[in-house]
Amino acid sequence: MSLVIFAILSAIFTFIMVNVFSYMVRKEDAGTDEMRAISSYIREGARAFLKREYKTIAFLSLIVVLIIAFGLSYEGVSYVIYTIIAFIIGAFLSLLAGWIGMDTATISNVRTANAAKNKGLFEAFRIAYLGGSVMGLSVASLSILGMAGLFFVFYTISKDIQLSASVVAGFSMGAAFVALFARVGGGIYTKAADVGADLVGKVEAGIPEDDPRNPAVIADNVGDNVGDTAGMGADLYDSLVAGTVSAIVIAAFAKNADPMLGIGYALALGAIGTLSSILGYFLIFLFKNLRPERILLNTVFIVGGIFAIISFILTYMLFGNLNLFWPLIFGLVSGVLIGYIAEFFSTGRRIMDLAEAANSGVAVNIIEGIALGMRSAVIPGIAVAISFVIAFKMGEVSGYGGFYGVAIACIGMLAITGITVTVDAFGPIADNAGGIVEMAGLGKEIRKITDVLDAAGNTTAAIGKGFAIGSAIFTVMAVFSAFSDMVTQRFGLEFNPSLMKPEVVAAALIGAIVPFFFSSGAMRAVGRTAKLVVEEVRRQWREIPGLLEGKVGVKADYARIVDITTTGAIKNMTIPGMTAFLSPLIVGILLGLEALGGFLVGALVAGIPLALTMNNAGAAWDNAKKYIEQTGAFGGKGSQAHKASVEGDTVGDPFKDTAGPSLNILLKMMSIVSLVFLPFIYEFHNWLVNALKFLIGG
Amino acid sequence: MSLVIFAILSAIFTFIMVNVFSYMVRKEDAGTDEMRAISSYIREGARAFLKREYKTIAFLSLIVVLIIAFGLSYEGVSYVIYTIIAFIIGAFLSLLAGWIGMDTATISNVRTANAAKNKGLFEAFRIAYLGGSVMGLSVASLSILGMAGLFFVFYTISKDIQLSASVVAGFSMGAAFVALFARVGGGIYTKAADVGADLVGKVEAGIPEDDPRNPAVIADNVGDNVGDTAGMGADLYDSLVAGTVSAIVIAAFAKNADPMLGIGYALALGAIGTLSSILGYFLIFLFKNLRPERILLNTVFIVGGIFAIISFILTYMLFGNLNLFWPLIFGLVSGVLIGYIAEFFSTGRRIMDLAEAANSGVAVNIIEGIALGMRSAVIPGIAVAISFVIAFKMGEVSGYGGFYGVAIACIGMLAITGITVTVDAFGPIADNAGGIVEMAGLGKEIRKITDVLDAAGNTTAAIGKGFAIGSAIFTVMAVFSAFSDMVTQRFGLEFNPSLMKPEVVAAALIGAIVPFFFSSGAMRAVGRTAKLVVEEVRRQWREIPGLLEGKVGVKADYARIVDITTTGAIKNMTIPGMTAFLSPLIVGILLGLEALGGFLVGALVAGIPLALTMNNAGAAWDNAKKYIEQTGAFGGKGSQAHKASVEGDTVGDPFKDTAGPSLNILLKMMSIVSLVFLPFIYEFHNWLVNALKFLIGG
Repeated sequence: MSLVIFAILSAIFTFIMVNVFSYMVRKEDAGTDEMRAISSYIREGARAFLKREYKTIAFLSLIVVLIIAFGLSYEGVSYVIYTIIAFIIGAFLSLLAGWIGMDTATISNVRTANAAKNKGLFEAFRIAYLGGSVMGLSVASLSILGMAGLFFVFYTISKDIQLSASVVAGFSMGAAFVALFARVGGGIYTKAADVGADLVGKVEAGIPEDDPRNPAVIADNVGDNVGDTAGMGADLYDSLVAGTVSAIVIAAFAKNADPMLGIGYALALGAIGTLSSILGYFLIFLFKNLRPERILLNTVFIVGGIFAIISFILTYMLFGNLNLFWPLIFGLVSGVLIGYIAEFFSTGRRIMDLAEAANSGVAVNIIEGIALGMRSAVIPGIAVAISFVIAFKMGEVSGYGGFYGVAIACIGMLAITGITVTVDAFGPIADNAGGIVEMAGLGKEIRKITDVLDAAGNTTAAIGKGFAIGSAIFTVMAVFSAFSDMVTQRFGLEFNPSLMKPEVVAAALIGAIVPFFFSSGAMRAVGRTAKLVVEEVRRQWREIPGLLEGKVGVKADYARIVDITTTGAIKNMTIPGMTAFLSPLIVGILLGLEALGGFLVGALVAGIPLALTMNNAGAAWDNAKKYIEQTGAFGGKGSQAHKASVEGDTVGDPFKDTAGPSLNILLKMMSIVSLVFLPFIYEFHNWLVNALKFLIGG
Repeated sequence: MSLVIFAILSAIFTFIMVNVFSYMVRKEDAGTDEMRAISSYIREGARAFLKREYKTIAFLSLIVVLIIAFGLSYEGVSYVIYTIIAFIIGAFLSLLAGWIGMDTATISNVRTANAAKNKGLFEAFRIAYLGGSVMGLSVASLSILGMAGLFFVFYTISKDIQLSASVVAGFSMGAAFVALFARVGGGIYTKAADVGADLVGKVEAGIPEDDPRNPAVIADNVGDNVGDTAGMGADLYDSLVAGTVSAIVIAAFAKNADPMLGIGYALALGAIGTLSSILGYFLIFLFKNLRPERILLNTVFIVGGIFAIISFILTYMLFGNLNLFWPLIFGLVSGVLIGYIAEFFSTGRRIMDLAEAANSGVAVNIIEGIALGMRSAVIPGIAVAISFVIAFKMGEVSGYGGFYGVAIACIGMLAITGITVTVDAFGPIADNAGGIVEMAGLGKEIRKITDVLDAAGNTTAAIGKGFAIGSAIFTVMAVFSAFSDMVTQRFGLEFNPSLMKPEVVAAALIGAIVPFFFSSGAMRAVGRTAKLVVEEVRRQWREIPGLLEGKVGVKADYARIVDITTTGAIKNMTIPGMTAFLSPLIVGILLGLEALGGFLVGALVAGIPLALTMNNAGAAWDNAKKYIEQTGAFGGKGSQAHKASVEGDTVGDPFKDTAGPSLNILLKMMSIVSLVFLPFIYEFHNWLVNALKFLIGG
C-alpha cells in the first residue's frame, strides 16, 4: 500500500510541476499585436472545437453510464456506483489533461515564434519544449493520480481488493472513450482542414501554405493542435491507463503471489517513469549546443535510461529477483524499435525510391507507397510477437501469471509517457510557431529557425507514433490478459478460446473485419469534410472582394471554416465510435465469451499490420514529397514528379493521421469494453442460450 | 467404393466431352490471314510464357520433392513414395488442364472474332462459350479424376484407408503449388503488360487500346490468357481439390461414421457438379434470344439448381437425412452471395459516387476507392462466419464431425467449378476477340459485337472472383479442419490452439503479417516489370522508324515485350512463392503445432478482408473509369475526372488482378503445406524442444 501512496504523492508533485512549467510559459512575451491576434484565432478555434467535442462526449457518456447502470446492476449497487465514478473520473481527467495541454500549447506557439525573433534558436526551443512538457506531464500525472487515488479510496471503503481492482477498470474505459473521440474526431478535423486547405490553396490557387488569404489556414493550424497534440495525448493517456489497470486487475486475482505488491509495483513504475520525465526539462540545458533534433532524442534516451535503472533497483528490492524486469525492458525496447522501423521506412534510400516512383506517375507512386507500408509491418509484428512470448514466460516465472508479465511489458513501454508526449507535443507547437511567423510576415530568417524546430518535431513525432501503435498492441494484449484472467479467476469458468471451436474462428473473422470497416469510415469522413472546406473557401474568395488578391485589411472568415470542420469531425466520429463500443457487446452476447476472445484477437492481428501500413505509407509519401521539394530531385517543385508526390501525400494524410492512429484506439476500446462489461455479457449470453434452448425444447 | 468408381467414370466421360468441345472449336473458320497471324502471335506468346513458367515450376517442384523425401522419411518408404507421386500428379494435371484450356482459348479468340464478322452475335457467343468450357471442364474432370483415381489405386494396393487418404493430401499440395505460380506469375505478367501498355500508349502517346503500333499490345492480350484464364483455372482447380481432399482426410479418420461413405460422398458431389456443368453448353441454346450476359447468368443458375437437386436426392439416399445437405447449400449460396456483393460494390450508385470523387482529383478518388473496398469486406466476412458455424454444427450432427461439414460446404461452393470456370474463361476469349478485331481493322460494327460479349464476360468475371475468394476461405477452413483432425486422430495428441497460450497469439500475429508482406511483393513486381515495358516500348518507337507513325508494313517487335514480361513475372514470383511454402514450416517447427494453428487462422482472418478490399476497390475504380468514358459524366473522356479515374484504375490493376487473387492461393498453400508436412513439423519441433531442454538442463 505504501507503493500506492508513493504513486499518489509523485503524481501530485508532478502536477505541481505542470503548473510551474505552465506559469513559466505564460510569463514569456507573446510578441506584437498581430502575432497575438493570430495566436488567439488558433486558440479560439481549438477551444471551440474542444468545447463542442467535450459536449458530444459528455452526452454519449451519459448513454454509457446508463448501459453500465443497466448492464452491471445485478453485481450490486456499490459495484455499479464505483464503476460509474471510475468511468466519469477517467474520462474527466483525460479531458482535463487534454484541455490544459492544448491550452498551453496554443499559448506556447506564439511565444516560441517571438523567442525565435528576439532571442534565437535555443530560447525558442526551450519554450516549445516547456509547452510540450505541460501536456506530457499532465497526461502522465493525472492518469496515475486517478488510478492510484481511486484504488486507494475504493479499497479504504470496501477493504475488498478484487472489487476495488475490478471497478478501476471503469477508469480505463473512461480514458478509452475520450481517447477514441479525441483521436478520431481530432484526426478527421486535422486532415479535413489540411487536405481542404491544400487542395484549394496550393493546388487550385497556387498560394503557399499558411498564407493568410486562405480562409482554411486557421483551421489547418487548429488541426495540428486538436489532432496531433490533444489526440496523441489522449491516446497515450489511455494506453498507460489500460496497461496499468490490466496489471492491477490481474494482480488482484493472483493466487500464488501477493496481490497488493503486484498492484503497488505497477503503479510505482508509472510514477518512476513520470518523475524521470520531469528531469527532461533540466537535461536540455546539457545539450544546449546540439541540433534541436539531437537534444530531443538524447533527452528521451537518457530519461529512458534513468527509468530503466531505477526500475531495476526497485524490482530487485521488492522481489529479490529480476523476473519482472525483463518484460519491462522488452516492452521499452519494443517501443523504441517500432519507432525506429517507422523512421527507417520513411527516410533514406526508401524515400528516394519512392520519389523515383512518383517520377513514373501518380499511380506508380501510390502502388509503391502502399507496398512500402505493407513491408514495414513485418519486423514490428515479429518483434512484438517475440516480446509478447518472452513477457508471458517471465510473468509465469514471477508467480503472478503470464498475463501479468504482458501487462508489465506494456507499462515498460508507457511509463515514460511523460517525456514521449512532451517531445510529441513539441512538434505542433513548432509547426504552429512557423505558421504564425508566416502569417505575421516576420520574414525568412525567423522562419528558418522555426523550420529547424519543426523538422526536429517531425522526427520525434515518428517515434511518438511508434510508441502509440506499439503501446496499443501491448495494451490490447494486457487487457485481453486481464479479461481472460477475470473469466477464469472471478467466474471460475473454464475459458478455452480454442481455434478448434467454430464460433471462435468465426468471431475472429468478424473481428478482423472491424478495423477495415472503421478505417473506411474514418477516411470517408475526411474526404467529405474536406470537400465542404473546399466549397466554403471558394465561396469566400468569390464573395469577399479583395480577399484572394490580398488587399490590406480584408480578412477571411476563418471562424466559418473552423465551424465546418468541427461539425464534420463531430458528426462523423459518432458512428465509428459507437461501433467500437457496441460490437464487442453484440458479439459477446450472441456468441459467448470464448468467441469474444476470438473477436478481440482477430481485430488485433488484422488491425496491427493495417495500422502500420497506413501510418508508414503516409509518412513515406510525405517525406518523398519533401525530398523532391528540398533537393530538387526529379525536377523539384512544380515538376510532374512533384505533382505526383503531392497526390501521394494527400492520400497519405488520412492514412497516417486519421485512420492509422484511430485503429490504436479502436483496438484498445474494444478490449476494455469487453473487460468492463464482462459480467453483463456473461449473464446476458447465458440468458440467451437458455431462452433458445427453451424455445427449441419447448 | 462404388461412389469412388462413379466419380472416376464421370471424370473420364467429362474429359471425353472436353475433347469433343475442343474439336468443335477447332473446326470453325479462323478468318483472314491477318487475323490468323495476330492470333498466332498471342498464342505463341502465351505458350512461350507457359513453357517458361512450367520449367520454373518443374525445377522448384524438385526441391519440394526433396523436402518431402527428407521430411517424411521416417514415415516409411511407401508413405514418401505415395506422397511424391500424388504431389507430382496433382501438379501435372493442373498444368495439363491449364495448357489444354489456354491453348483452346487462344484458338477460340480468333474464331470468335471471325464468327462475329460472318455469323453474328450468337454464333460468336457460342464459340467463346465452347472455348471457355474446354477450360472449365478440363479443370473439373482432371481434378476429380486425379483424386479419385489416386485414392482408388493407393487403397487397392495398401488396403489402408487412412494412409491412402493422408497421402492424397500430396495431390492437393501439387495443385496448390501450381496454382500459386500460375496466379502470382500470371497476375504479375498480365498487369505489368497492361499497366505498361496503358502508361506508354494511352497516357503518353495518346493512341487507343489494342493499337498495333504499341509493341506491348500482344503482351497485353497474352496477359489476359495467362492471368485470367490459366491463373483462375489453376486457382479453382486448387480450391476444389483442397476442399475435397480435406473431406477425404477427415472422413478417413472418422470414428462414429463410415469412412468410405464419407470419402465417396465427397468425390461423388464433385462428379455431379461436373456432369451438371456439361449441360451448360446445351442450355445456352434455350436462351438464344437473350443478352449474352443473361444467357451466362441463367446457365450458371440452372446448373447450380440441377446440382442442388441431385445432391439433395443423393444425400437423402445415402444417409437417410439431410444433415450434410445444409452445409452444401450454405456453401453454394455463400459463393453466390460473395460474388453478388462484389458485383454490388462495383456497380450503380457506388460507381457514380466514385466517379464524382474522381472529379475532385486523383487523391480523393484513391481515398474513396480504398474506403469503398474496405466497406465491401464487411458483409461477405459476416456471411462466411455464419456459414462456417452452421456447416460445423451440421457436420457434428452428421457423425463425421464439425470439420467434415466445413469441407462439404467448401465442396458445395466448388462442385460446379466446371461452369464457373467456363463463364470466367469466356471473358478473356471475348476480350481477345475484341483485340483481334481492332488489330485486324475489321471495323466498328464488328467491334460492337465483341464489346457486348466482353461486357458479359466482365459481369461473370466478378462472380468468378467471388467464388475464388469465397472458396479460398472455405478451403482454408476445410484444410485447417483436416489439419486439426489429423493431429488429434492420427497422432492422438491433445490439440488445443487456445488464445490463452502466448505462442498461439504471437503466431496469429505473425500469420496476419504474411498477407501484407506477400501483397507488397506482388504489387512491387508489377510496378517494376511495367517500368521495363515502358522503357522497351519507348526504345522501339525511337529506334524502329515509322512504327509510331503507323507506316504500312512496319511491325513492332512484340516478342521482345513478351519476353520482358515473362522474365519479370517468373523472376518475381519465386520469393513470394517460396515464402508461402516455407513460412508455415518455420513457424511450426519453432513454435509447435498449436502455434501453427494460430498462424494459419491469423493469416486467414487478416488475408480475407485485405483480399476483398483489393479485389473490390480495383473493380470499382475500373468501372468508375468506364462509367465516365461511356456516359460522358464529368466531362467524359479526356476530362480531369477521366484522367483521375484512369490513375485509379491503374492503381486498381495490381490490386484486383495480382495481389488480391494471389492471396487466395497464399492462404490455401500455407494450410495445405501445414497438412502435408504435419508429421515432419511435429517430429522436428519435438526434437528442437528436447535439444533445447538438453542444452539448458545440461
